This record gives sequence, C-alpha cells and structure tokens, in this order.
Amino acid sequence: MAEKASVILAINAGSSSLKISAYKQHSPAAELTKLAEAQISGISSPPAKVKYARGAETVKNNEELAKDQVTNQASAFAHILKLLTSDDQLDDIKGNDHITHACHRIVHGGDYPKLQVIDSSTFHHIEQLSDLAPLHNGPALSIVTAVSDQLPHAKNVACFDSSFHSTIPEHIRTYPIDQSVAKRNKLRKYGFHGISYSFITGTVAQHLGKPKAEVNIIALHLGSGSSACAIKDGESHDTSMGLTPVSGLPGGTRSGSIEPATIFHYTHDAGKPSTKSSEKMHITQAEDILNGSSGFKGLTGTADFGDISSDLSKPKNKLAYDLFVDRVLDFVGAYWLKLGGDVDAFVFAGGIGEKAVGFRDEIVQKMSCLGVFLDKNKNSKPGDKPVEEIGATGSKCRVLVVKTDEQLEMATGVVREGLTT
Amino acid sequence: MAEKASVILAINAGSSSLKISAYKQHSPAAELTKLAEAQISGISSPPAKVKYARGAETVKNNEELAKDQVTNQASAFAHILKLLTSDDQLDDIKGNDHITHACHRIVHGGDYPKLQVIDSSTFHHIEQLSDLAPLHNGPALSIVTAVSDQLPHAKNVACFDSSFHSTIPEHIRTYPIDQSVAKRNKLRKYGFHGISYSFITGTVAQHLGKPKAEVNIIALHLGSGSSACAIKDGESHDTSMGLTPVSGLPGGTRSGSIEPATIFHYTHDAGKPSTKSSEKMHITQAEDILNGSSGFKGLTGTADFGDISSDLSKPKNKLAYDLFVDRVLDFVGAYWLKLGGDVDAFVFAGGIGEKAVGFRDEIVQKMSCLGVFLDKNKNSKPGDKPVEEIGATGSKCRVLVVKTDEQLEMATGVVREGLTT
Repeated sequence: MAEKASVILAINAGSSSLKISAYKQHSPAAELTKLAEAQISGISSPPAKVKYARGAETVKNNEELAKDQVTNQASAFAHILKLLTSDDQLDDIKGNDHITHACHRIVHGGDYPKLQVIDSSTFHHIEQLSDLAPLHNGPALSIVTAVSDQLPHAKNVACFDSSFHSTIPEHIRTYPIDQSVAKRNKLRKYGFHGISYSFITGTVAQHLGKPKAEVNIIALHLGSGSSACAIKDGESHDTSMGLTPVSGLPGGTRSGSIEPATIFHYTHDAGKPSTKSSEKMHITQAEDILNGSSGFKGLTGTADFGDISSDLSKPKNKLAYDLFVDRVLDFVGAYWLKLGGDVDAFVFAGGIGEKAVGFRDEIVQKMSCLGVFLDKNKNSKPGDKPVEEIGATGSKCRVLVVKTDEQLEMATGVVREGLTT
Repeated sequence: MAEKASVILAINAGSSSLKISAYKQHSPAAELTKLAEAQISGISSPPAKVKYARGAETVKNNEELAKDQVTNQASAFAHILKLLTSDDQLDDIKGNDHITHACHRIVHGGDYPKLQVIDSSTFHHIEQLSDLAPLHNGPALSIVTAVSDQLPHAKNVACFDSSFHSTIPEHIRTYPIDQSVAKRNKLRKYGFHGISYSFITGTVAQHLGKPKAEVNIIALHLGSGSSACAIKDGESHDTSMGLTPVSGLPGGTRSGSIEPATIFHYTHDAGKPSTKSSEKMHITQAEDILNGSSGFKGLTGTADFGDISSDLSKPKNKLAYDLFVDRVLDFVGAYWLKLGGDVDAFVFAGGIGEKAVGFRDEIVQKMSCLGVFLDKNKNSKPGDKPVEEIGATGSKCRVLVVKTDEQLEMATGVVREGLTT
C-alpha cells in the first residue's frame, strides 16, 4: 500500500466550464505533486475551448473544439480524461484505472462539516440541498454522475464550499425569523468560498509560523463572486454570504445584501418560477434577477471589475467602484471589531484580490485609523509566491496577497482525511 | 405678528396608537414650551386607553375608554382634541382655532430632503410613496385627513423619517441591481428614524459645544424598531435601514437584513398578496412576514427586548440577545471605519438604548479595541437629562445616552423652517 501512487483529480464544474487538476501522491506521507491541469470553457455556448498544461508547460491554449465535440459536462469530462490518459509525456496517468480519486467542488453542503465520500445516500442528500442553491449545485451533480460512469473504480469525494463555515456560532448564523420555519426549511447563514478560506488559513498560518488554531485573519475572496470572512483561532467566525451565495458583497452579476423587500418592488412576479426552472429545480424570478443580472452588471452593463476599474472616468464605473469599496469596508470594520482588533493578517485573494492594485490601496488607506498600512511599492508589484507581503513595516497586522488554490486544497483535503491510505 | 402665540401639535400615528404633544411658541424667536401630551393606545384592539399629561402633571394614566368611543385614527384625534380644548387649566388652547400647526411624523418621504407643508399635491405624492412603505405610511395619511377635517385652519406639515438621510452619498445609497429598474421604481436606501437622528445630532453638538456641521457621531436608535446611523459633519453618511424600515438591525417583529433569497425558501407564496392588502395597498406575504412575525418575536415568541434580556437563562432569549449584540457590532465596526475613527460621540437612544444597562455594557466592552470605554457606575444609573455621559475618562470618544424627543424635533423643525412666522 505504501508504494502505490494515488492520482487525485480535483474537479470544479461551473455553469458553462469544467476545470480539472490532476495530483499525484507517491506515498501516504508525501506531498502532492501537480501533474496537469485542463480546462474547458464555453460548454453552453459552443464552440467550447480547451486549455491544457502538463506541469508548468502549456500544451493547449484556448484551442477551439469542433461544435459537437463537447456539449455538456459529461462530454467535457470525457474529453479531458482522454487528454490526460493519451498524453505520452504523462507517465502517471496511463489509463483510467490509474485515477484513484475524483474530488468535486460542491457549493452548498448544508450541515456537512467536512468533505464526504459520495455514495448513493450522500448523492441523494446533495440533490436535496440543491433546492437551497439550485443555481449552484446543479453543474456539480452532473459531473459527479459523469465521473461515476466513466471512472467506476475511482472514489468520488464531495468538497463543500460551506463546510469551513460550520464553526460559525449559532447567534451569528441564525436569521431573526420564525425559528419553527427556519429549522424546518434549514434557513440560516451557511457561507461559501470555504475551500478558498481553508487554503488561506493553512497557508497564512504556515507563512506566519503560527499554529493554525491560533491564527486570526480577515480575508477577502474577491472575484466574479466575492465574500469576506472573519477567521478566529483558525476557524470561520463569520462570513458575508448566507443561505446562498447571493448575499453579502456584490459580485459580477450578484446583488449581494440588499433590503429583502426590494425585489417585490422590482417585479410583481418575484415569487414566480423563472425560465431556468425545471420540474426538478425550482428557481424564482427573484433568485434569477438577484444572481444573474445584478451586481456590477446591473450597475454598469459589464460584470468585469477589471474593465470597470480601468476606466473610472465613466460615472457608472466610478459608482460601481466606490460602492464596492464601501461594501467591502462594511465587512472589514465589522470583522475587526468582532475579532477585538486581534488580527494577525488582512488577506486579499481571488481574481480581484490578486490583481486590483489600486483597489487594495484604497481599502487599506481607509484602515489607517486601525493602524493598518500598506507598502505602496510592494503593493504595486507583489511577487509570484502563494503568500506575498504588501503591508508597511509597523502595520498593526500583516497585509497579504494570497494566491488561493482551491484545486490543491480539495486534493489536500482528500489526503488529510486519510482517504488515500 | 410678534405677539401672536403659535400652538403646534406634533402628531405620531402608529398602526394602533396616536400620540400628540402640544407646544407653544410665544414669539418667532422664542423657544418652544411643551403644554401637554396625550396618547391613545389600543385603537385597533378596543377598549382603547388614554394617557394625558398637562405640563409635568399626569392627568389620566391609561384610562379605559368606552368600547365605541375611539375606533380609528379620526375618532382618536377627535378625542384628544376635545381633551386639550376642554381642559380648564390649559389656557393656551381654548378652542380649535388656537392650534396653528399640526406636524405629522411620516415614515417614508421618498426624495423629500426636508419637511413639507401638506397641500393636495404633497398629499397625493405621499400617497404614492405608500407603495414603497405600505405598512408604515398608511396610519399617518389617515390622521392627516382627520386633522384637515377637524382643524381646517391649521397648517399641516409632514415631517419625514427619511429626510435626514437625504445626504447619504450616492455610492452608499445605491443598491447593486439593474439601475434602469432601480431608477424607474425608486429602489435605493432611504433610511428612517431620521427625526430622532436629527434631534440627536443637534442635542449632542450643543452638549459638546461644537458646531453641528463639525460633529461626527455613531448613533444607535434601539427600540421596537432599531437602526444605526453614521453621522459625518452633522449629516447622515450611512444608516442601517434601507428602502423600507425592514432591513438592517432586527426589531421587535422585523427581520432586519437577511439574505434576500431567504423568503422564497420560507414560503412559496412570498410574492402573493397578504391578507393586509387592499385594493389601494399592495402588501406581499413576504413583507408581512418580514415586518410582522420576525425579529425578536420570531426568535423568542415575544417582541419585547426588556422581557428577553431580563431572563437570559432561557436559551431562546440568550440566542436573541447575543444575536442582537452581534448585529449591532456589525454596524458599529463598519461605521467606525467609514468615519475613519474620527468619532466625537457614540450614542445610545430609543427605548432599549435608554434602558438596557447590561446591553450597553456588552456593546462598549467589545469596543475596547477601538479605545472606547464605559464608566460602569455612570452606565448603571445615567441621570435624567436629555444627554447623559456614560463613558470612562480617557475613552477615545464620548459615550452618551440621549433621550431622543421626536415630537419636540418635529415642532422645532416647523419653527426652524420659518413656518410659524
């Protein structure tokens, strides 16, 4: 057993994309080695495109596929599986049966406090949870089925974006609504981006040379979906998303927190089924509007924060930018107080967190009253390491840019839970 | 003109109550003198009860009225008007025509940045606004009609709870939703409790001996409805309530901010009309649930925070109490950061703010990382003045309990705007 290499696929299925990273573990105690990464985009708007890298080498860079080659998650997975197993230079994956584990990023995990091996009972439970997050869990479930069919010998593992937040105290996760209904319908704050926050916590603790259980962090995962998290003693203490990913910070197309009565003044059909509903999946027009046509897109017409921040001379863009700064500060201030100012690190992560130099500057400037300061030079060009320091000497807490790696965190989770031994 | 006394009634109509304070101004430059205050409660659940005080003297203390004597806002107003005009010891109101002004607290004032004399056009506009706040503006409109009928010579003035917040910057008041719909349907943060925050700002500035335009305050108005406000340079910079009073902090029966998708998982009938709807007034079941059966009532069964905090051995009560502390801290932290830590005073007001000694202690203890400290002795027994200091020597900002007086603020507003000259 100790000699057998495990090959783990970390799988992230979006509504129109599929990303798979392959990792190898030579022995139970060894670190994971990344073998390859493949991504297919545009699945629902063909022609789909494929990216493929073996180790650090780019093999395919957005090559267009034939129109009917990839049309859904199952055919996208088959395509990537073929890429991996037929790559002459990839010695570790010579056949389907070399792949021992497939771990899946699943957004909503309900009460699950950690990853789960998927059997028929787990699968059924995740299907039921889809009622709480119909727009989010759907694609992940199709890929789980495809992997079961195409890799019958591999162990399927569900990694939930909500699990890291299972430590949020009851008085913080409870919504002040009728508790008989809340309990029956499982209505509370769950929180998401947990795989990323788990990676951040581990990586920052290591960087600081502190035990994970002693580290306090305010982390911002800012991307097409954005959230904030207060991490206390290495555990999630509060986060900005809630029952579903729609609340908290605005995203590319998500509203974030708005007055709950607003949607009924937006449309009289708020509670009616949206065109995305199916017999199995109940989606209201409200959820569709709040998830799909709000946020930056609703404010400016584009969901891309990079485009917005690159031209602040347009009033719409300036409004969206200032609004985003304001909403982020809401959570930073709240979490600073909840952590009693005892913060080891203030972390920027996610696409926006990694790239938006000016935005980071703006946020940290507003934190000067808390004694937190940026090193402008470091901020303008942080290096390429997973954790980069951008704080000034003398800042009350470290200011860090973390290159979060959800794929690696999922695969590491599988190893950590002893599923490869 | 200089010799003519103005008698101003400040009128606050709730869904089942009517409170009226009578003030006199001897000359345009003089301060207001409070002549009397009367309140009828239980209008919609007879027998109604009446309280009446002449100056500082209590004349009637919750006397029950005959069952059919007061059945609506109009008959309640008629009853109070009779009390005032037939009181032998009230020399200043000997007849209806002694009353020159009636100012009305109206919750939702839309874009109105200040009080308005009510003519047919203003009345019609306020009626239209009721679509945004059907549960809140309704009672005020019935009383305006009653006063117009019964005091045809008095000037009716609308004082809006939203006006003080008209200074909130665009990027803070904007919701990140489709702006074409938002503009058409006037969907944005308005904010409420503004009459109280206006009183607090003026009173605290005077107490500190600072010009109002230079004073920065974080104020909490905590009562059966609760909100927080960041006051920058004497103006509202942000507040916790939004399009309607339902968002922000939880209240006696209001949810406060919860994930906007929650209600669709609470009931499939969220968008359908509630039983409170009428042909003129569209109220969804969602709005009814979120305003009427959530908050402390939804958590514990009682809407009364005093009852909850008096027995924290009950797990339900402890949960509601801790939850309220948590949500208040969310806003305190956010507003501290938005004001750049440049805060002159941290203010507790409203029924809970004035009375809840332990709660104030708990909140300010959590602010020690900001350098804010309580004097426990002062906190346990603040005096009876409109502004009482409860902060410790050396606290980074003053900590104050303010006895907010919305009735006086309304009447003062009428004088300030020159309507009595």
